[in-house]
Amino acid sequence: MPTNQSWYLRKRPVGEVAEGDLELVSEEMSALGDGLVRVRTIYLSLDPTNRIWMSDMDAYLPPVELNTPMRGGSIGVVEESNFPDVPVGSIVNTGLATWALYNDLPGAAVNVLPVIPGVPLTAYMGPLGATGMTAYFGLMDIGQPKAGDTLVVSAAAGAVGSMVGQIGKIQGCRVVGIAGSDEKCRWLTEEAGFDAAINYKTENVGEALDRHCPDGIDVNFENVGGEIMEAVIARLNDFSRMPLCGLISTYNLDPSETTGPKNFDNLLMRRTKVQGFIIIDYLDRFMEGAAAMGGWLMEGKLKFETDIVVGLENAPSALGRLFTGANLGKLVVQVSEPPA
Amino acid sequence: MPTNQSWYLRKRPVGEVAEGDLELVSEEMSALGDGLVRVRTIYLSLDPTNRIWMSDMDAYLPPVELNTPMRGGSIGVVEESNFPDVPVGSIVNTGLATWALYNDLPGAAVNVLPVIPGVPLTAYMGPLGATGMTAYFGLMDIGQPKAGDTLVVSAAAGAVGSMVGQIGKIQGCRVVGIAGSDEKCRWLTEEAGFDAAINYKTENVGEALDRHCPDGIDVNFENVGGEIMEAVIARLNDFSRMPLCGLISTYNLDPSETTGPKNFDNLLMRRTKVQGFIIIDYLDRFMEGAAAMGGWLMEGKLKFETDIVVGLENAPSALGRLFTGANLGKLVVQVSEPPA
Repeated sequence: MPTNQSWYLRKRPVGEVAEGDLELVSEEMSALGDGLVRVRTIYLSLDPTNRIWMSDMDAYLPPVELNTPMRGGSIGVVEESNFPDVPVGSIVNTGLATWALYNDLPGAAVNVLPVIPGVPLTAYMGPLGATGMTAYFGLMDIGQPKAGDTLVVSAAAGAVGSMVGQIGKIQGCRVVGIAGSDEKCRWLTEEAGFDAAINYKTENVGEALDRHCPDGIDVNFENVGGEIMEAVIARLNDFSRMPLCGLISTYNLDPSETTGPKNFDNLLMRRTKVQGFIIIDYLDRFMEGAAAMGGWLMEGKLKFETDIVVGLENAPSALGRLFTGANLGKLVVQVSEPPA
Repeated sequence: MPTNQSWYLRKRPVGEVAEGDLELVSEEMSALGDGLVRVRTIYLSLDPTNRIWMSDMDAYLPPVELNTPMRGGSIGVVEESNFPDVPVGSIVNTGLATWALYNDLPGAAVNVLPVIPGVPLTAYMGPLGATGMTAYFGLMDIGQPKAGDTLVVSAAAGAVGSMVGQIGKIQGCRVVGIAGSDEKCRWLTEEAGFDAAINYKTENVGEALDRHCPDGIDVNFENVGGEIMEAVIARLNDFSRMPLCGLISTYNLDPSETTGPKNFDNLLMRRTKVQGFIIIDYLDRFMEGAAAMGGWLMEGKLKFETDIVVGLENAPSALGRLFTGANLGKLVVQVSEPPA
């Protein structure tokens, strides 16, 4: 039996994840159970929501229990199978598994990935993965972009935001992204086709929005919260839409430290629709999202980047890259060698 | 020509409306223009939104200009007519007119009220007026109540809230109201048929909600904002709806003093839909609302109260009753004698 390596959650982090909150444990694996497949992780997905799962809060999923493996999504290769429909060698998306080298999972619960020439495996962590589906359904279903609308997206160079903006361009919107470095802003306008990008670390976001959104804002795809969200809310148009996807600026805060948008009343004056959503609510519509995103990807309309950190041992520290704004595109940990 | 009396806005109030912010002006009227009708006000509607109109803020309508008559809705009788379809003696709803004894208005813009036996004129300020339509469309269109849902409404003994709760009961909801006195709470449960009522001035709202909403909250009809809203948001169920109708607790505040709900993140976790709305957006559907509300009123399913303050000179001070919680039901100023 192989030896597994798993990150166990030992303490609930206070603020940023710190040394000792998680522990990497080596364990001898037992025999694979009936109906299960043993998946060796290739790419482990790191997402802002991982930080929510570590907290003891009333979120959309129960918190990860202390002294159990950390929850996470991944892509891997089946090394042993007790489920005939998912043979050894299959490349699968695990859905919700754990931060581990191996996961034993029900064969019926994993999703075998098609091998499409020209589509790299990392696309299944990005445009064709949970973050791509988040962008697609949040924008199309809730944001309801129309040609000529002005769309603002925060965390725009992230895995979700970068897709949101590009889908918005496909829909005929004027797209303005907010991101945390000049390099990211350049990528957004020069590679991803955004109309404008604002570096919130060096620019006054409100003034920059006034400049780049002369007709106000029709759709705010919200990933961040805090003062950036307030600056956007202040410039919403009547009957605007605000898919509420994430509030990453708050995830490291103690609940006693969080504040709502001071200009909450503008949501009333502008008759804005704010709709919180979590991608797992759209599981039964993933085929629709995959078809649309796959088509645009093939047509070359979706640029994406993957920020690859090598080595499972680096997962907890890599997570911090999402909160400091260090990463561009989808953040993954390469846990083992991808197939050639 | 008659002498008119009009309240002019002289200063933008700071906090509560104070002596000197408005001035009652007597003016000789000129001859009635072509196509106009001269309406003697019977009942002037006082509403929380009047306070918004006095502020120099970017609201859903432009602010009332300084040194012009204060804006308001009313019901009155036509005393002179240059518009044949609206003859002298007609009882009309003025739509948006002014705080005055007389308003000269385009005959095509006023709404002649049907005289229905058993329906008092005050019903057109309440269940069949703008507040009733606000309750109907906000709850039915945005709140989408289902039988078995738990509905919470704040400012529950007010003109809008009292209708919301009763419509909720008609839809089969469990209805919990939040109001500011024991007398109001008694009226809500004993007269209006609410399942429970919470006196926010004497009870811990969160604890009371826990007691009265054992299955959580599916619809929050929001009229108030502030800490009461936070207590409700904390108890929302997944996929809850929150018609955002008013934030009366903030209207007397300077914008620098307002805060958003601290637990804004729960709107994400619960996938709540928050939708701001203003009743003027539903003007083209008023027939639908009037038909439904009229039917329920005839069936005796809608109890309503009218809080009548006599005398136009008392309008500014009467407005304060909405903010201190002094009034039960629809607040109106009786400006002149209603017909027998």
